[in-house]
Amino acid sequence: MASTDTVKLADYLLTRLLQLGVQSIFGVPGDYNLRLLDFVVPAGLHWVGNCNELNAAYAADGYARINGLSALITTFGVGELSAANGIAGAYAERSPVIHIVGTPPRPLQDNRALMHHTFADGEYKRFAAMSKHITIAQTELRDATTAPERIDWILQQALIHSRPVYLEFPDDMPHVLVSSERLNTPIKASVPPSPACESEVINRILERIYSAKQPAILVDGESKALGIVDQLDTLIQSTKFPTWTSVWGKGLVNESYSNVYGLYAASFGDKPAQEYFESCDMVLTFGPHYSDTNSYFEMAVPMPAAAITFRDSTIQVGSDIYRDISPFRVLSAILTKLESARISTAQGPPKQVVTLDDIKSTDLVAQKNFFRLVNPLFREGDIILAETGTAAYGGRHFKLPPKSRLFTAVTWLSIGFMLPATLGTALAKRELNKPSGTRNQAILIIGDGSLQMTAQEISVMIKEKLDILIIIINNEGYTIERVIHGRKQAYNDVPSWRNTKALDYFGADEEAVKENTFTARTVGELQDVLKNERVKDGKGVRIVEVFMEREDVQEGPLLWVLNKQLAEEEAAKSA
Amino acid sequence: MASTDTVKLADYLLTRLLQLGVQSIFGVPGDYNLRLLDFVVPAGLHWVGNCNELNAAYAADGYARINGLSALITTFGVGELSAANGIAGAYAERSPVIHIVGTPPRPLQDNRALMHHTFADGEYKRFAAMSKHITIAQTELRDATTAPERIDWILQQALIHSRPVYLEFPDDMPHVLVSSERLNTPIKASVPPSPACESEVINRILERIYSAKQPAILVDGESKALGIVDQLDTLIQSTKFPTWTSVWGKGLVNESYSNVYGLYAASFGDKPAQEYFESCDMVLTFGPHYSDTNSYFEMAVPMPAAAITFRDSTIQVGSDIYRDISPFRVLSAILTKLESARISTAQGPPKQVVTLDDIKSTDLVAQKNFFRLVNPLFREGDIILAETGTAAYGGRHFKLPPKSRLFTAVTWLSIGFMLPATLGTALAKRELNKPSGTRNQAILIIGDGSLQMTAQEISVMIKEKLDILIIIINNEGYTIERVIHGRKQAYNDVPSWRNTKALDYFGADEEAVKENTFTARTVGELQDVLKNERVKDGKGVRIVEVFMEREDVQEGPLLWVLNKQLAEEEAAKSA
Repeated sequence: MASTDTVKLADYLLTRLLQLGVQSIFGVPGDYNLRLLDFVVPAGLHWVGNCNELNAAYAADGYARINGLSALITTFGVGELSAANGIAGAYAERSPVIHIVGTPPRPLQDNRALMHHTFADGEYKRFAAMSKHITIAQTELRDATTAPERIDWILQQALIHSRPVYLEFPDDMPHVLVSSERLNTPIKASVPPSPACESEVINRILERIYSAKQPAILVDGESKALGIVDQLDTLIQSTKFPTWTSVWGKGLVNESYSNVYGLYAASFGDKPAQEYFESCDMVLTFGPHYSDTNSYFEMAVPMPAAAITFRDSTIQVGSDIYRDISPFRVLSAILTKLESARISTAQGPPKQVVTLDDIKSTDLVAQKNFFRLVNPLFREGDIILAETGTAAYGGRHFKLPPKSRLFTAVTWLSIGFMLPATLGTALAKRELNKPSGTRNQAILIIGDGSLQMTAQEISVMIKEKLDILIIIINNEGYTIERVIHGRKQAYNDVPSWRNTKALDYFGADEEAVKENTFTARTVGELQDVLKNERVKDGKGVRIVEVFMEREDVQEGPLLWVLNKQLAEEEAAKSA
Repeated sequence: MASTDTVKLADYLLTRLLQLGVQSIFGVPGDYNLRLLDFVVPAGLHWVGNCNELNAAYAADGYARINGLSALITTFGVGELSAANGIAGAYAERSPVIHIVGTPPRPLQDNRALMHHTFADGEYKRFAAMSKHITIAQTELRDATTAPERIDWILQQALIHSRPVYLEFPDDMPHVLVSSERLNTPIKASVPPSPACESEVINRILERIYSAKQPAILVDGESKALGIVDQLDTLIQSTKFPTWTSVWGKGLVNESYSNVYGLYAASFGDKPAQEYFESCDMVLTFGPHYSDTNSYFEMAVPMPAAAITFRDSTIQVGSDIYRDISPFRVLSAILTKLESARISTAQGPPKQVVTLDDIKSTDLVAQKNFFRLVNPLFREGDIILAETGTAAYGGRHFKLPPKSRLFTAVTWLSIGFMLPATLGTALAKRELNKPSGTRNQAILIIGDGSLQMTAQEISVMIKEKLDILIIIINNEGYTIERVIHGRKQAYNDVPSWRNTKALDYFGADEEAVKENTFTARTVGELQDVLKNERVKDGKGVRIVEVFMEREDVQEGPLLWVLNKQLAEEEAAKSA
């Protein structure tokens, strides 16, 4: 065998991460990952020490949604299990997080030693077995010969599937020398070769596009995982077809185009849009994800006969499913061949206009006016995050400026997620913008109940000097649960915190403690707060606490379930 | 079939929990458990809404360690996975927690509906499969006929094994009517019938007791799960044998008896104890748990020839292992038959005396003086909790008053555990003492890094009006990790919090905010603080922040690993 250059295994992994655009790693130190952590900063990566591992996983998920890939390092057992819910969420919503677990040194594992962070029974494969259910691929580094290939394979799996993967890195292996040869070959998400049917599919779709009388485009969130977001932008511009998104698809589409309508909410949205959409003869549907919460209980799913649907490696036209085909390549071919002259001009439904006319400054801030008041804050490129709860149901109707991204409740809906995710997205954005120095603002809207789940991560936002505006909806508990069930039940209450003390407790500097916290109960107060330069365009973490009523929800699904509950209460009374 | 009385399934479960002494339930509401939560308070149980599910699991673990059993309710997917690390810790350290997961209604599961809190792929058994690795038994309620039996079975498994169990409770089942017949038969942890060898074992152990020239008793933590703690008290009093405990066994033995020496630390403890212990001809060993951290890297394990070892359903004498035998019954028989006159008087080693002589009030507070200064705070019946980290290594040497309990780092060592566990233990203690109104004080000693993991649970302590003293060791990060590895590495730092603002942020009343927070940097300051009535015997949550040096650790294993690291650094420098 020819001699090759060598590299330490930890450096091999970190070099690969750098090659793939990862600049920061999230996690918490622990007994079995310290030797690996020694390599992080010298390799040129930034280490974000989170307050706990669930927060770290959430932050890594957020980072991957902006950056395309992220890495999380936890320790065996205690660390990785704390992160499990965050990893599962990344699976559900297709965020490629590399979960690297520092495991006990190989000799201890081989001897079945009764180490701490185990059940003291010699069993070391329990937690890896658990990870199989919430990651798309798993591997274990065991020797110098196979380790580089295993690292390459696991990273590629994350890219191909856009889902989290699990990598066991024994504590005695960071210094192990391995061949650096493979580092010269970049890792890419591979695409299947063209199947025989490919040109048939392309032509068939083109014909449908040309013959469509009432066409539409529906962009759902898995389009991101398909790698077709830029192509969709071209498609939307060149066809001028009326375009909607799902809840998850929002923020993947430029809402300033005249043919983009924003969210399609079926019977929960405006009637003209629903009438148009439901009588379409063709809906080009990308990256569909039909969970109850992302599809309005499947009501926002296009009619099967009209739908042409692009999924991971299938394209469906009517009832024909073409498999092992690349949506990216097919869409590229369509865009290349598309003859604009043959597309009929589609007359979409009238657009709904949102006005602020009916809001008086003495009104209490309420769900029906809050989101309209906040919306003008957002500027080009901002990241807007609306946590599961009333924030998500209001936030999905935001009108988004170009190049902004919106993150909101899709399917996993783990409350507490959005605050650390904000940290991750804001950090990724700043790194990608470097060194241009443009505005890097993230705006989080979160309820008081969700906030309590992961509040400590505010201290890491402060430490990282990120520009983040946190708007807290304080309605004294889990309003979303109240409207679903248990309207007056104490179990939907949360402890009363003094949210205006957060910056002080979590260690912000004195100026920030004095100047960066705001509260509002009335529309007038909120309007004043929103005019403040620190709120609009400030530095560091700023907090705005807005008080709303306990059972106040927007029109839409939440009001519908609340009314259902009220009707059941009435029926029970009269029974 | 004869007609029987009926009861709603939720009431069946809650009645069983009440019968078994559970008075409070921990958890977080979620979409799939709200209908079950409706029954909690009407059934006469207290609902503790925690800030997040990991905190809830930790609190339930703590509650079970005092109460003998606890219950935790989470929601499917997002909730249960957040709790996973807490459940795993309960498994490792034998805490019987009933983890009840509210799952989606049966029709949705049967239809493989693409609901939120799933991966939107129709698969509903993923998280239950994960639970198999971290609970001792699992079951799913599916129909009215079998549900009561399954509940009884799962509760019995928790009692038999003293480990957590997993129960899936579909959201459409709380109101289902089931037979109440089984409720008349109490659930008990069953014991195996006497094997033929039982009298031989009893006699053999009695003979060894009578013939022992240099006997000792070693009480380890699994003795609690064996249900023999009261019998051990009798054994220790009637034999007068020199008695030690492991780290985990501390707090199960009355340390005010003259023959009780406290912790056995092998070469890390005092020499006379080690010399005596290592030359014993008999060590009666109860509930052994030989993880590296609980056994001083196995150095504190008795010599095999001397050991007579009581485990779950085995007793080992020399190399003979008697299986399927009840340690409880054997120990009962031994105590009944024991003839005090035939026991030779054992002369134990001299006892180490801890003095405060060498501490000056101008000294900085340091690990070597801190624990001695704090120790006099503890009074009969107190619960003392020393979190993983330097607190655990110092706390294991506390001299404990009668009927107090000590909880410290055993095997799972998940930092962040001890704060919510404090909530759970304090609540259980108050309920068990009711209505006597005696002192119910819990004293938590915790590092600043651990605190940040789960700090929000302070707000639940406040809401529950528990009497808890929190002593924070602020040494600017993970000192225990610094001494293990990465002494000067930034990854062992944590964000700087203003810990004195915690009570204000977490919603304590104004008097508490003003009066219940203390700080100390010098011995004199700490002594003053410890004299304060609010600290010694106060109501509600009080916080004492004590500052120590970043690399300050006690003599013992931590100093040993720190010195090893320093030597390696020296060697690297001169290499």
